[in-house]
Amino acid sequence: MSKLVKTVVVVGIPGVGKTTVLNIAVNELLTKGYVVKVINFGDYMLQELIQQGLVRSRDEIRLLPLKIQREVQERVAKRIRYEIDSERDLHGESIFFIDTHAVVKTSTGYWSGLPYHVVKYLMPDVIAVIEASVDEILSRQVRDKSRERSDYGDPKLLSDLLMMNRMFAISSATLVGAPLYILYNREGSAKETALELVDVIINRLRV
Amino acid sequence: MSKLVKTVVVVGIPGVGKTTVLNIAVNELLTKGYVVKVINFGDYMLQELIQQGLVRSRDEIRLLPLKIQREVQERVAKRIRYEIDSERDLHGESIFFIDTHAVVKTSTGYWSGLPYHVVKYLMPDVIAVIEASVDEILSRQVRDKSRERSDYGDPKLLSDLLMMNRMFAISSATLVGAPLYILYNREGSAKETALELVDVIINRLRV
Amino acid sequence: MSKLVKTVVVVGIPGVGKTTVLNIAVNELLTKGYVVKVINFGDYMLQELIQQGLVRSRDEIRLLPLKIQREVQERVAKRIRYEIDSERDLHGESIFFIDTHAVVKTSTGYWSGLPYHVVKYLMPDVIAVIEASVDEILSRQVRDKSRERSDYGDPKLLSDLLMMNRMFAISSATLVGAPLYILYNREGSAKETALELVDVIINRLRV
Repeated sequence: MSKLVKTVVVVGIPGVGKTTVLNIAVNELLTKGYVVKVINFGDYMLQELIQQGLVRSRDEIRLLPLKIQREVQERVAKRIRYEIDSERDLHGESIFFIDTHAVVKTSTGYWSGLPYHVVKYLMPDVIAVIEASVDEILSRQVRDKSRERSDYGDPKLLSDLLMMNRMFAISSATLVGAPLYILYNREGSAKETALELVDVIINRLRV
Repeated sequence: MSKLVKTVVVVGIPGVGKTTVLNIAVNELLTKGYVVKVINFGDYMLQELIQQGLVRSRDEIRLLPLKIQREVQERVAKRIRYEIDSERDLHGESIFFIDTHAVVKTSTGYWSGLPYHVVKYLMPDVIAVIEASVDEILSRQVRDKSRERSDYGDPKLLSDLLMMNRMFAISSATLVGAPLYILYNREGSAKETALELVDVIINRLRV
Repeated sequence: MSKLVKTVVVVGIPGVGKTTVLNIAVNELLTKGYVVKVINFGDYMLQELIQQGLVRSRDEIRLLPLKIQREVQERVAKRIRYEIDSERDLHGESIFFIDTHAVVKTSTGYWSGLPYHVVKYLMPDVIAVIEASVDEILSRQVRDKSRERSDYGDPKLLSDLLMMNRMFAISSATLVGAPLYILYNREGSAKETALELVDVIINRLRV
């Protein structure tokens, strides 16, 4: 059996507990002796844009022509694929998490975070979609006032966004033939959710 | 800031008020001094087919082999892209509306109006999806007996078609990374809906 | 009018009665004098894998690296397309059914049965999606204990799977511009459903 090296795209709308689940999964994998790298797609975008002198801060990204945003998005996806391919032989068994979104709601509409020009380079072994119930998302938002989530307070809009998230994720999965693994992150069960994700990656996807 | 030139695909199932909203948006943009062109995809298809001697009237289109329909569809999409690119430097700030469908229900099933071989040439800056509630669509149909919409009278079928419309639009948006802007066209508020669309195009998408 | 040769992809989740409907449709078409071939995508996959010495039995497929599964999937799709193109001129009017899935639920998540690297070769004239109500699927499962369907017993999961099936099918249809024909297979009406499918193929898609 060959060495396990997996690319795992993790998506979820704000409030489902993505960051918490991801952190627990990372620690669990490190404890088990895996090499783990978390790639935050948004951070890579910002870094690339700053390097090219196109922006100085995150706030300026939305002022860029969309055509340039799209080009940079594709370049970042290529760079991530290149990094993963370069590092896969340097280490032992490795998990590369790509922390991103299936869809992002903005003032110009719903944007795919995994359009064809991105997902075809990422070529994930699995797209993990973290979901939660509308009630759980709302109660997390009440506790977590620090982050900008004012747009998501309405139950009807949230339920819509959860559905949009699935549809966008399915479209992306169909483009590359990646499996879509839906993780239901029950309130207070982030550890269980994380362990399920770990199980999928190191056992069920091992072959 | 560079000159604003936008390609806006507008879709919506019969009865949501697409034509009304589009007309108001066009007038509003003309009043504001923009160059506006409305490209009706179906009309371009018919024109191309007649020019090539493949049909003499709209009724004959459905008698064409599907392979030929698909080829012509792709050629029309290329021609529209070429037209937009040719005209973008001739005028001031310009809006090119492409009036078409995300999905069309026919006797042979649901057809995508924006399949990959079409949307990859159109490369819209935004796909605007006009929606309305089932009740509003039904009441519009009662008033508008002139157009062939007999197939759409059943609330269950309509609600299904609205969902299919979203799913097809999302698939197309993911292929090209275009934002999907959903406009809810409330009864009697076509003007508001049109102004929201105008705002998205000339302000929010300006960058 | 040219000779009718159609490629018909047939999908449906376990329990909707796909096999029954397909068998009746095949007999009906044979009776009417058509050349009919049913291509089971899973069987072709297994045959290809055995020929290449990659597996000895169906059970071993899931032990193969996913990358290899994907490559073989693409090769099988190409081979099917080649077969259909080779045979289309040898016979009279022919129907090639491809019996497969829009989505398959596995321990690693939802897999598209018609990802881009497959559907672009199959290039179906229509994707027929056979559906049934959750109640009907459950009652079929009770009667049909012989097949492994334990995973599908929960009404909520089944209703989810029916929705996922549509979304995956729509994504695939958008990629190739194929129409999606949804057949509702009512309990005890498999013959009617099959005749509707036959009508779509030999009459409505004839042009």
